[in-house]
Amino acid sequence: MADQLTKRTQDYAQWYNDLVLKADLAEHSDVRGCMVIKPHGYAIWEKMQSALDGMFKATGHVNAYFPLFIPKSYLAKEASHVEGFAKECAVVTHYRLKSDPVHGVIVDPDAKLEEELIIRPTSETIIWNTYRGWIKSYRDLPLLINQWANVVRWEMRTRLFLRTAEFLWQEGHTAHATKQEAEEETRRMLDVYARFAEEWMAIPVIKGVKTASERFAGAEDTYCIEAMMQDGKALQAGTSHFLGQNFAKAFDVMFTNKENKQELVWATSWGVSTRLVGALIMTHSDDNGLVLPPKLAPIQVAIVPIAKNGEQLMAIGEYLEPTIQALRAKGISVKFDNDDQKKPGWKFAEYELKGAPVRIAVGPRDMENGTVEVARRDTLEKQVMQMTDLAEKVEHLLQAIQENLFQKALAMRERFTRAVNSYDEFKTAIEEGGFLLAHWDGTAETETRIKEETKATIRCIPLEGDTTPGACMVTGRPSKQRVVFARAY
Amino acid sequence: MADQLTKRTQDYAQWYNDLVLKADLAEHSDVRGCMVIKPHGYAIWEKMQSALDGMFKATGHVNAYFPLFIPKSYLAKEASHVEGFAKECAVVTHYRLKSDPVHGVIVDPDAKLEEELIIRPTSETIIWNTYRGWIKSYRDLPLLINQWANVVRWEMRTRLFLRTAEFLWQEGHTAHATKQEAEEETRRMLDVYARFAEEWMAIPVIKGVKTASERFAGAEDTYCIEAMMQDGKALQAGTSHFLGQNFAKAFDVMFTNKENKQELVWATSWGVSTRLVGALIMTHSDDNGLVLPPKLAPIQVAIVPIAKNGEQLMAIGEYLEPTIQALRAKGISVKFDNDDQKKPGWKFAEYELKGAPVRIAVGPRDMENGTVEVARRDTLEKQVMQMTDLAEKVEHLLQAIQENLFQKALAMRERFTRAVNSYDEFKTAIEEGGFLLAHWDGTAETETRIKEETKATIRCIPLEGDTTPGACMVTGRPSKQRVVFARAY
Repeated sequence: MADQLTKRTQDYAQWYNDLVLKADLAEHSDVRGCMVIKPHGYAIWEKMQSALDGMFKATGHVNAYFPLFIPKSYLAKEASHVEGFAKECAVVTHYRLKSDPVHGVIVDPDAKLEEELIIRPTSETIIWNTYRGWIKSYRDLPLLINQWANVVRWEMRTRLFLRTAEFLWQEGHTAHATKQEAEEETRRMLDVYARFAEEWMAIPVIKGVKTASERFAGAEDTYCIEAMMQDGKALQAGTSHFLGQNFAKAFDVMFTNKENKQELVWATSWGVSTRLVGALIMTHSDDNGLVLPPKLAPIQVAIVPIAKNGEQLMAIGEYLEPTIQALRAKGISVKFDNDDQKKPGWKFAEYELKGAPVRIAVGPRDMENGTVEVARRDTLEKQVMQMTDLAEKVEHLLQAIQENLFQKALAMRERFTRAVNSYDEFKTAIEEGGFLLAHWDGTAETETRIKEETKATIRCIPLEGDTTPGACMVTGRPSKQRVVFARAY
Repeated sequence: MADQLTKRTQDYAQWYNDLVLKADLAEHSDVRGCMVIKPHGYAIWEKMQSALDGMFKATGHVNAYFPLFIPKSYLAKEASHVEGFAKECAVVTHYRLKSDPVHGVIVDPDAKLEEELIIRPTSETIIWNTYRGWIKSYRDLPLLINQWANVVRWEMRTRLFLRTAEFLWQEGHTAHATKQEAEEETRRMLDVYARFAEEWMAIPVIKGVKTASERFAGAEDTYCIEAMMQDGKALQAGTSHFLGQNFAKAFDVMFTNKENKQELVWATSWGVSTRLVGALIMTHSDDNGLVLPPKLAPIQVAIVPIAKNGEQLMAIGEYLEPTIQALRAKGISVKFDNDDQKKPGWKFAEYELKGAPVRIAVGPRDMENGTVEVARRDTLEKQVMQMTDLAEKVEHLLQAIQENLFQKALAMRERFTRAVNSYDEFKTAIEEGGFLLAHWDGTAETETRIKEETKATIRCIPLEGDTTPGACMVTGRPSKQRVVFARAY
């Protein structure tokens, strides 16, 4: 229960791990680096999927499904792509087991694949190999396709949700006739991600472009949304890549344009993953447990009856029935917890730990008074409410909680974001965490030096805000604008 | 287009393959045995998922996610399970690639796994290994969990949707305190599948139990739903397994019962896959293309304006706008196809090929008369309808099409189902296809002999219908009831 959670101030990383386990979100499996997403964690992911899928479809995208396996030679076709992923590829080499009298079940040496198959770490190569057959003419463009899938990147150090060998994600892969259209798509999907983060996850994000060294392997430009966690560290919450014609070149994907000439196709790709569940936890939760924005909470309203016997329990059920019906009619998920094996106090702690945004408690006294006790998870405040229009009041409260979580996260980010003007100031400030806005000369050398000396990376070159030029805090050379530095997950 | 489809009477298998490709449902990928599910095919699967997921949740199940990888030793823990799957396992042996000056990108021999990982062919072993940590007491039971996932079974001969190396599916894995509860769950989910097949897919199914030789590897009993395709062959459309305590034994999953004693847990598992898309196609479609039951059709109503110019097109749009709004308000998906680059005739053929249940055509004459032309895909009949209450009329038509498809499939199944009383009669009848109801002595020997001599298998021992005992058509020995024989996919 919650009282066993490590406090955030004591050990933030341990708090996070405790919380993921105790709130029944996920656990490590016996398979190295892979997690089991438990029902409560998966229910949050389902809500995220549903919202994102709706946003993708509203922007003209359709879903499809491509193979899990990528022939090794495909991955190798785009040079920087394979370089970026080679070190974390799970490789299938055989397709059969057999019984061995001495060793039991063994891999059948006679069933070796001619060409090894890679478990997709991302699907650009297999998809662009497929697109070659689908795209002949400008009439076939744009192709706006998304895939919900599992991918594998063999990570040596893993953390639940944040970094696992296998994870779930969506990957959009679009094909366009012109550079401009592809660039617009890249930015459109970045905006979709930013809107999802802010409106659904209640997480304020900075939209920006990555430096060359932080780009996706095979991209011309990588855009990202960056969020600040409660420990002041940054978390990349989504990326959208302008891939230029790199994959069209590698897989020979040409189209006949309106002038009847052959041209290479332009590409984008974009993705978010179960990592977002980690971001959600680290942004809002507290020492009592999970705090979930109402729009993504599997149970939005938990109702705990306080009854001495079955008769009272029944009466409370009847008392609340119209409210429960009214809430459900509004699409609000309600759990009326009438399990008489568990005490109300235990239930209170449980729903606090699991992050139900609103908890309603009702006892015999409440029924006499025509009231209920309503507790909100974000502020832990309780208030007595009259039964009149209770469903409407709860609906408004859920909206208020959603908004409050965003404002709270925004205020925190603003408190821990500051401009620094010298490298000395930077070195001191970075120890306190948060986002530092500083001038940088645009070179990989300086970026690497800062990273090595301070463990801070350039999270992004922000697309909005102050774009005044200046001088690099390290080298004094010209800088086009301040960039965002932070230590990151 | 449709005129390039092979006719069913000419070559049913070729017709199926043509149709899957031409209706843009799926295609073979370059990766052996793996298919690409194209947007139109995936949209049907999404509709299936959504309906099934709702039915699973309504019966108390929740979703979760378990690792793609299964350590080889886990798979080996349940003897008959590994025996059943060993021959079709994709095996991961390495976790890194590297650059080689001579051979380019190679598998890094230094990155060999200590224990090989199997890509899940099904997840009983990894899940029951996990359940060991989740189940301590009778209070933790039942555990009612479902997973939507991809699985891999290395098949040598593959067919789009029907048999592919990688496929998408759902797998339910439940844990119970008593045998009776587990058996009830097995039957409950069989009923869910049967209801889904009949009410959503419009496919009549026979519910039954498999013979020992056709059981799932590791099950005590395998229940199934069997459907008849238009060529008279059977297709197993879903299975629900009573696993007894086999996996609890293999993975040491015990619980403390109410009497404070340790007991082994009882298990079920059940699944349906993208194979259902194949069943859907083969049950209803015709020589003109796809025929989809309205409840699973991505586009339920396709509207084709017949306009000579932009002005007419605009007028038709305005004419239909209230109807389109009214249809959408009823949750009916409508495509108003105003693409002026394509001719109406081309569009008619296209929507016929892609299986839109209702097509509405409107030209200037219709506007003068206050009518539209409505064509139904199942019967290819056209009728002129007045605009008054058009949305209601179309809604009823969709319901009528759904019902007609079911009745048509049912009539076909009844026509091609018959009781046979001698093995000679059986041998002649099986050449004509269909389901044969015959007496069998209950032995594996006789079952094998029939299979070898006629290529017919026992699809199931039906749970409903005639249970009169008799004498085996082959050996004359006693038979408890007639069983269903057929050649099968």
